[in-house]
Amino acid sequence: MPNITIDGPRLEDVGKKRELVSAVTDAAVKAFGLPRQAMVVIIKENSPENVGVGGVLLADRAK
Amino acid sequence: MPNITIDGPRLEDVGKKRELVSAVTDAAVKAFGLPRQAMVVIIKENSPENVGVGGVLLADRAK
Amino acid sequence: MPNITIDGPRLEDVGKKRELVSAVTDAAVKAFGLPRQAMVVIIKENSPENVGVGGVLLADRAK
Amino acid sequence: MPNITIDGPRLEDVGKKRELVSAVTDAAVKAFGLPRQAMVVIIKENSPENVGVGGVLLADRAK
Amino acid sequence: MPNITIDGPRLEDVGKKRELVSAVTDAAVKAFGLPRQAMVVIIKENSPENVGVGGVLLADRAK
Amino acid sequence: MPNITIDGPRLEDVGKKRELVSAVTDAAVKAFGLPRQAMVVIIKENSPENVGVGGVLLADRAK
Repeated sequence: MPNITIDGPRLEDVGKKRELVSAVTDAAVKAFGLPRQAMVVIIKENSPENVGVGGVLLADRAK
Repeated sequence: MPNITIDGPRLEDVGKKRELVSAVTDAAVKAFGLPRQAMVVIIKENSPENVGVGGVLLADRAK
Repeated sequence: MPNITIDGPRLEDVGKKRELVSAVTDAAVKAFGLPRQAMVVIIKENSPENVGVGGVLLADRAK
Repeated sequence: MPNITIDGPRLEDVGKKRELVSAVTDAAVKAFGLPRQAMVVIIKENSPENVGVGGVLLADRAK
Repeated sequence: MPNITIDGPRLEDVGKKRELVSAVTDAAVKAFGLPRQAMVVIIKENSPENVGVGGVLLADRAK
Repeated sequence: MPNITIDGPRLEDVGKKRELVSAVTDAAVKAFGLPRQAMVVIIKENSPENVGVGGVLLADRAK
């Protein structure tokens, strides 16, 4: 704790995940003033069939 | 925002997902009085091995 | 289960909450084909100081 | 409701899931004084590429 | 990580919270085989106006 | 979407929230390559009575 959950689309590049986790952790350390080691970040990748924005599935938007 | 997360069993039919996202978005627009485009719905599909109701896995119930 | 979590701004009118829960439950019953009694909806109300859209707090936008 | 969500690493052994759900449900029944049947537990399994602790992906730690 | 989130009604007695966190942590240590210190439990207390079961607010059921 | 949820202790200083939301949004824009305006960050503040680390409430640790 703090725990940070990131719900987004698929992120195939592990390098992008690595940078995301590192940068978000930096921001949390600065805001909360707690040890870096306490920070947990979880990335949740969601299929375009499972996300709707404005009432429309991303899978349908892409068409 | 508003963000709506729906945790349920697997939903194989994309038509059902489409209707679910649309109807839930309608309900949120009506309640919050915010633009339809602001509404995000995420469907989370869970395996029967990963859900317990009343202390029993759904995977065991189905047997 | 299914569990539906709605993260939004404050919703002061309990009548709006009542309608939101009812309509979202209707949509979930139709999509999942599970009993109405199984559906759980939780509304999470968030302060404008605790929500950022596009990197800006809603509390700052309102100004 | 109550709904309990467990975000962890992969848990391959269904026997461990079964015990986890049962024990967590026992604890919730005792704390809330609500019927066992009301308790819902969802296990979320996360890939080591999608979890960062202390700013480092678990996938990188394992190396 | 693992992170366990418990969404329930209000739980006024801190003793019940203490026991809940301890017992849930025990169960997670046993299932995941990870150090006790890694386990994070967050209790989320929800008002009866913000929870619907079967499409009906708990606040309305209580009446 | 992407949606980022930050569960932490209370954060009284709105300036810290502002910076946290901005920095986390920067990181997400870089990782996902999506418009800044799409990013939603929600900060969830938790009481020390409602968080357990290593099976012990933060409220008890502070003593």
